[in-house]
Amino acid sequence: MGALNTQLGVNFPRGFRSAGVYCGIKKPGLLDLALIVSETEASVAGMFTTNRACAAPVQWSRQVAAGGKARAIVANSGNANCLTGEQGMRDAQRMAELVARRLGCAPTQVIVASTGVIGVPLPMNAVESGIGQAFERLSDGDDRATADAILTTDSASKRAALETATPAGAVRIGAIAKGAGMIAPNMATMLAFIATDAAIDPADLQACLRRVVDATFNSITVDGDTSTNDMVIALANGASGVALTGESLEAFEAGLYQVCEYLAKRIVKDGEGASRIFEVRVSGAADADAARRIARTIAESQLVKTAIHGGDPNWGRIIAAAGRAGAPITVERAQLFLQGTLVFENGRPTEYDERALVNAMQADEVHIVLTLSDGDGAAHFWSSDLTAEYVKINAHYRT
Amino acid sequence: MGALNTQLGVNFPRGFRSAGVYCGIKKPGLLDLALIVSETEASVAGMFTTNRACAAPVQWSRQVAAGGKARAIVANSGNANCLTGEQGMRDAQRMAELVARRLGCAPTQVIVASTGVIGVPLPMNAVESGIGQAFERLSDGDDRATADAILTTDSASKRAALETATPAGAVRIGAIAKGAGMIAPNMATMLAFIATDAAIDPADLQACLRRVVDATFNSITVDGDTSTNDMVIALANGASGVALTGESLEAFEAGLYQVCEYLAKRIVKDGEGASRIFEVRVSGAADADAARRIARTIAESQLVKTAIHGGDPNWGRIIAAAGRAGAPITVERAQLFLQGTLVFENGRPTEYDERALVNAMQADEVHIVLTLSDGDGAAHFWSSDLTAEYVKINAHYRT
Repeated sequence: MGALNTQLGVNFPRGFRSAGVYCGIKKPGLLDLALIVSETEASVAGMFTTNRACAAPVQWSRQVAAGGKARAIVANSGNANCLTGEQGMRDAQRMAELVARRLGCAPTQVIVASTGVIGVPLPMNAVESGIGQAFERLSDGDDRATADAILTTDSASKRAALETATPAGAVRIGAIAKGAGMIAPNMATMLAFIATDAAIDPADLQACLRRVVDATFNSITVDGDTSTNDMVIALANGASGVALTGESLEAFEAGLYQVCEYLAKRIVKDGEGASRIFEVRVSGAADADAARRIARTIAESQLVKTAIHGGDPNWGRIIAAAGRAGAPITVERAQLFLQGTLVFENGRPTEYDERALVNAMQADEVHIVLTLSDGDGAAHFWSSDLTAEYVKINAHYRT
Repeated sequence: MGALNTQLGVNFPRGFRSAGVYCGIKKPGLLDLALIVSETEASVAGMFTTNRACAAPVQWSRQVAAGGKARAIVANSGNANCLTGEQGMRDAQRMAELVARRLGCAPTQVIVASTGVIGVPLPMNAVESGIGQAFERLSDGDDRATADAILTTDSASKRAALETATPAGAVRIGAIAKGAGMIAPNMATMLAFIATDAAIDPADLQACLRRVVDATFNSITVDGDTSTNDMVIALANGASGVALTGESLEAFEAGLYQVCEYLAKRIVKDGEGASRIFEVRVSGAADADAARRIARTIAESQLVKTAIHGGDPNWGRIIAAAGRAGAPITVERAQLFLQGTLVFENGRPTEYDERALVNAMQADEVHIVLTLSDGDGAAHFWSSDLTAEYVKINAHYRT
């Protein structure tokens, strides 16, 4: 597998062009509309928010992904087109139609995504002019503008690209993402768009994407809130001439995992107010679902998150969070490691060196490992600490 | 029903005496051991934490409550006797034995509760001397010391007492409680001890307590963390000579509800770092469980809690939280009221007066009412806002 290039995104694979422009949704000077176009019809796969109050573009793009084939992705930031009633659905469809007309394809082959303010109708004049501009600026060179045009409160653009050798030949993968708070009426949502020049059957691409997203984008948490607009889309256009099945597809999946893991961790690091990130690894749980519940409950616990912020090896809060996760757990047979130090076993704390461990907890990344003896379920979660800065950002968004 | 007296607790009903003393678990001068004794054998009922990492005294007292009869409650603060291995179970039992010997009853008739630091063995010499002192100071007068001796990071003692008229005659109820953060290795736990001089069958008392606790102590949240030591205990000793069944029992339950609701709200108001509290009322949900999930998800959402802190009528975060609660919800038929103002219906925001509503949101209590059209499930939850002060308290507890 090649090295990860974090200065290039969706333009790295062959047969893709993209653009990012300012059209007037955000403040002047801030890019707010992104367009990604495949030269030829591509296989498409998608993973969408499970929030029942999902936005119009999510409802639209779920149908596009179900069709298996797409030509383009159009995404705006600054307005989520969410909780906007029937007008919202018409606007999402109109975005697809505007792109489809230029490409000469069906509107049902255009993925639409939005992120930003909830409950405000999209300024469609701005969007229409933005789509026109974006087509004029489509390029297969640097795609920094494309990556920037989907950001909201993110502090930096998020790109990753990789060439992966497979038994069938080398293929390229490139992706862009955005994060920040998981959901907010002003600035919202996790989005990721992945392009590859491999030729992959839509069903294979969907299966592959689901496995990778579950272990990466679905294993991170900033504040436990699932956005109304979350979406991860993969396009595979076959421009490499390399068709993937069997072992070659597995090699591709490993590359896709590397790209998505990098972007997912970047999103956590860039979480609102975050000063430090931490990983929770659970093994030996009753089953995979139990492992995931336990890892997630620890990762989302306010008391664990504040302890991580304080650099406090507060094992009691971690065990207590594991205990309330709603999964079976035999505390007497649990072992807990913080930064590699065994701090808890046999139902009580060990006699570890508190001062040394406090020092180790000051690192940028903290690792929590919980080893259970209840089965063979394993899971991991990445999370950010909870800071006074987070409260400030989120208490005064609108007023 | 009589007026609620908040300057008296477990000593109000006849046939109970109590004491609160300092024995050396907390810093000098801070009361840390409470004893409540019924003159005669009382019916006992209990509700306990569902955390699987529950403390030794919880395991002990669950057995006592299952027996249906008890004479006393002994509780210490400053040490949770939790995650203390086998020694912890021996220490909890020893506390019961020390009390039982003085009363001439079986140890299995003594409820034991602890709250405070996790993972540190109880200083049993101090506890033993404290129990001796407490017996010397048992009184049926003012019970402020009893209430204070179970506090941890609470800013004020929490008592409530009431005389309730029932068709069978008047009975008295008195209770003390403690709250603060739901769980922390230093200071932890929700505890409530309720005494009544009514004569009630243990099974009736348990059924009554379960219904009341579900709607009061189990419908509050400060940080979503379920403590390892939570416990609500009711003792009914019959000293009033009034035996309750049928309608009389219902009248008693209404009184018990009033006492518990007051104490539960006091716990939320006194939540760590809280500057404001809010109530979430959900009606028209698919069923009671769905209503509870939705109310709780809104009440625990970090983004809702920070918006409440900022006095921000952020309806988008509330709808988004409802949408991810894992319960069916038809957003298009939902109505959302903030401080009585309709802010959302027909899948989009109404044209409310933003400035007037922002002013209304500055109140000490904020009311969120979500009316659904999916069924007849209803639920409510009380919660506190999330503040920078909360983060400060919890980031630097131990280091």
